[in-house]
Order: sequence, then C-alpha cells, then structure tokens
Amino acid sequence: MRISRRERDVEWGDCDPAGIVFNPRFFEWFDAATAGIFTSIGIPKAELLTRFNCAGIPLVETRARFLLPSKFGDHVVIESGIAEFGRSSFKVEHKLFNKGALAVEGFETRVWTARDPVNPGKLRSQPIPLELIALLKGVGA
Amino acid sequence: MRISRRERDVEWGDCDPAGIVFNPRFFEWFDAATAGIFTSIGIPKAELLTRFNCAGIPLVETRARFLLPSKFGDHVVIESGIAEFGRSSFKVEHKLFNKGALAVEGFETRVWTARDPVNPGKLRSQPIPLELIALLKGVGA
Amino acid sequence: MRISRRERDVEWGDCDPAGIVFNPRFFEWFDAATAGIFTSIGIPKAELLTRFNCAGIPLVETRARFLLPSKFGDHVVIESGIAEFGRSSFKVEHKLFNKGALAVEGFETRVWTARDPVNPGKLRSQPIPLELIALLKGVGA
Amino acid sequence: MRISRRERDVEWGDCDPAGIVFNPRFFEWFDAATAGIFTSIGIPKAELLTRFNCAGIPLVETRARFLLPSKFGDHVVIESGIAEFGRSSFKVEHKLFNKGALAVEGFETRVWTARDPVNPGKLRSQPIPLELIALLKGVGA
Repeated sequence: MRISRRERDVEWGDCDPAGIVFNPRFFEWFDAATAGIFTSIGIPKAELLTRFNCAGIPLVETRARFLLPSKFGDHVVIESGIAEFGRSSFKVEHKLFNKGALAVEGFETRVWTARDPVNPGKLRSQPIPLELIALLKGVGA
Repeated sequence: MRISRRERDVEWGDCDPAGIVFNPRFFEWFDAATAGIFTSIGIPKAELLTRFNCAGIPLVETRARFLLPSKFGDHVVIESGIAEFGRSSFKVEHKLFNKGALAVEGFETRVWTARDPVNPGKLRSQPIPLELIALLKGVGA
Repeated sequence: MRISRRERDVEWGDCDPAGIVFNPRFFEWFDAATAGIFTSIGIPKAELLTRFNCAGIPLVETRARFLLPSKFGDHVVIESGIAEFGRSSFKVEHKLFNKGALAVEGFETRVWTARDPVNPGKLRSQPIPLELIALLKGVGA
Repeated sequence: MRISRRERDVEWGDCDPAGIVFNPRFFEWFDAATAGIFTSIGIPKAELLTRFNCAGIPLVETRARFLLPSKFGDHVVIESGIAEFGRSSFKVEHKLFNKGALAVEGFETRVWTARDPVNPGKLRSQPIPLELIALLKGVGA
C-alpha cells in the first residue's frame, strides 16, 4: 500500500474544554488526508473531480479508534493509504501518530460518484476509472 | 426592522480549552441566523436560491463585538434583522443574548449573487429582487 | 433502551461543494446528541461533569454508516440511546432520519474519566457512578 | 510590524455548496495564525499560557473584509502581525493572499486574561507582560 503523509499542529480551536482534540476534527483531517492521497500521485482532488467527471467520493462507512488523546500544541503525523479497491468503492486507512505513538486509527469506505445525467441533483455510484486505480497502486512506478 | 429569533444550546464541541465558545462558531451561528431571516418570511434559503436563481449571498464584510463569554451549557438567543438594503447588497445585524444580557453583536454586509452565464464557476453580484425586498421589509404585512 | 430525540435543520455551512452534509458534522451532532441523553434525564452535561467530578466522556471508538445523503435545507431527526453499560465505558447508538428514512447510523464507545489526582493534565477512566446508570436506565421511572 | 507567515490548502471540507470557503473558516485560520505569531518568536501558545499564567487571549472585537473568494483546491498564504499593543489588549492584522492577490483582510482586538484567583471559572483581563511585548516587537533582535 502506497502511503501518503501529512503533518499538522493541534490548534486551540481543534480542542474541547478538556483540552483535547474534539473528535469530529479527526474526521476532517482524515477527509483532507484522503484527498492528499490523490494529490500525492499528482492529481489534486479538485482536478480529480473535473478530469474524471466525478461528483465526489462520499463516505459509505467510517470507523475510528482513539488510543491516545492529542492535546493543544501537539504536532501530529497522519499516514494514509488505500487498502483495497472495489468496483465503485475503495477502503482507506489512516494512522495518526502523536510523538511517534499511534494515537488514532481511521478506516473509511468511500464510493466513486457521478451526477445522474437525468437528475443532476442526485449522485450515483460509478466504476472507479481503471487508469486511476493503476496510478494509485503505483503499478510500474 | 423585522426581527427573526433563534435559540440554541452551547455544546461541548462549540467550546475551546478555556471552556468558552470558540469565536468562529458565532460566525457559523450568524450565517445560519441570516438564513433564518428568509425562513421567517416563508422562503427557506434552499428555496431562495432556486426560486430567485441566486448562487449564494456571500459576505463582503463582517464585524463582531464580544461583550460577554458564553460557556458550555449556556442557552443563547440570537435576534437578527436586515438593517439596510442596497441595490445588490444588504446589511444584517445580529444580537446574541446569554441569560438576557447582550453577549455578542454581529454585523454583516452581504451581496446577492448569480452564476456568471459565460463562466458558471464565477459568481457575479446582481440586483436584489424587489419582490424579495418588499417581503423582507414586511410592507403591508 | 431509553431514546432521546433531537431535531435540526441542515444549514448551508454544514454542507460541502457537493451540497450534502460534510461527514464530520454528523459526529458533531452525535456528540451533542449523546450530551442530550443526559439532559433528557435532567442532568445537562455541564452539570454532569461538576456533580460527578467527571473530566469528560471521550470516545474510545466510533463508527458510522451513511445510507442516504442529507442536503442543505433538509430537516433531520436524531434518536439516541445508551445500548450497553460497562464498568467504566458505555455504548451509544444514534439513528439520524431524513424525511422519515434512516440516513445515518452512529455507534460510539465512550469512557467515563476523571482528572488524575497526581497529574491533573491527564485523564483516567473511572467506574461510572451506579446512581447515574440507574437514572439512565430509567429503573423504576 | 513583525510578520509571521502561514500557508494552507483549501480543503473540500472548508467549502460550502457554492464551492467557496465558508466564512467561519477564515476566523479559524486567523485564530491559528495569531497563535502562530507567538510560535514565530519561539513561544508556542500552549507554552505561552503556562509560562505567563495566561488563561487565553479571547477576542474583544474582530472584523474581516472578503475581497476575493477562495475555492476548493486553492493554496493560500496568511501574513499576520501585531499592529498595536495596549496595556491588556492588542490588535492583530491578517492578510490572506490567494495566487498573490489579497483575498481577505482580518482585524482582531484581543485581551490578555488570567483566571480570577477568587473565582477560577471567570477570566479577567491582565496587563500583557512587558517581557513578552519586547519579544513580539523584536526589540534588539
């Protein structure tokens, strides 16, 4: 599995009255980290959507395990990769490290969508382009 | 000025490590309260956009004064109204009360936009529909 | 299982460029809905923390299934309950309905914590007060 | 005025259904950028609070002007500095640039606070330590 890596500082506004990261922030960071996987192969998500006529890669299911709290002022590292490709869905895994220790694990199942040609307000799942899967797997790279 | 009123509880996730509302939350609440002004005349913002072919009412300028902190567990009331209409812009005023005391004042200048017919990715300011202004002023109501 | 119920409007700022709720928002709403379970038995979370000397009820694990998208302007209902009590942890289930249809399911495992008496910056898991469990189960109520 | 500089990518989750940054995000970024001013003189905000016995630097007033929209996929630069020091308050200015053009200007008035010794749940304004002002002004540096 190709790993893409991001770092970030835990900001004051990321934390709750207990002084630790408010859990929805991890899902924001994981969402951006999934976009970062595409950026890491040279296709930023904004370009991904237009180039492959994709309407978004919404979550079908997500799960996270919180092993250690992260506090205001901590510096964290997120390592992300695509663990599995289905026909129109794929599974992403994120590991967030704080001072070298695994602090949060995230698991996402996402679906590749296009706008319905008849009803553009509706999104439909679509096969993931094979060209893109090859790039993400780094075949031959 | 017609006043539209909203109430909300200050949640754990709205607050920072000092235990008080993190300031961007007030701007989220004011944004929703501005939408609530339209809802209060029977035109929810989602309908506003489609019915009047509007692409959004983005902020041009905003200002807020923070007079008293709001803490986790507090219950706040937001009173909002449109203080002034220009040709394609309008000014909104918000007052947030906590236990009856004025805690935050917000001032917004917003612009009425449509998608550019030539370049739909670009928003352009447009005259606010007069029919809508009449409804918002409650003329004859 | 006692069910506590909350309603909310999907606001403009809850939604992403695809026009649907950005997934971390659901985790914000579930977090507030869990607090709402305590409010529903007459103990708002702010009071819970002081009365039972609790430092917070952080997540150990969470999972969500996204069945139907929720769009800007939708009105959603969240039904929440505590499905299981352990010694120092408990499991919460949330069901979010949109126009009567189940749109998102959330599952949380949370732990009851206190500040470490020696190192107040550190949180430690603690047995959930039996008095509180009885109230939450509604025994005899 | 010493300038501290931060860069960031505009993420999918930062944007609203119009595809542009939802305005409260700018206030989040400005809040973190203000913290970054302290980090830039070698005193991260977390250390600032403990070292100077500070309970936070809450906003008294803030204002922003939105000149150009920032879209999903854009890369922005924020330049921040302290424009003025009062006895217990200070004024911060932020300029956010998108592709070299000034896109948002932010102005903050913040107050230096400590916990009230009698009532620790209450914050009180306090004189800003002179040692810190000297460091921030870069006198002799």
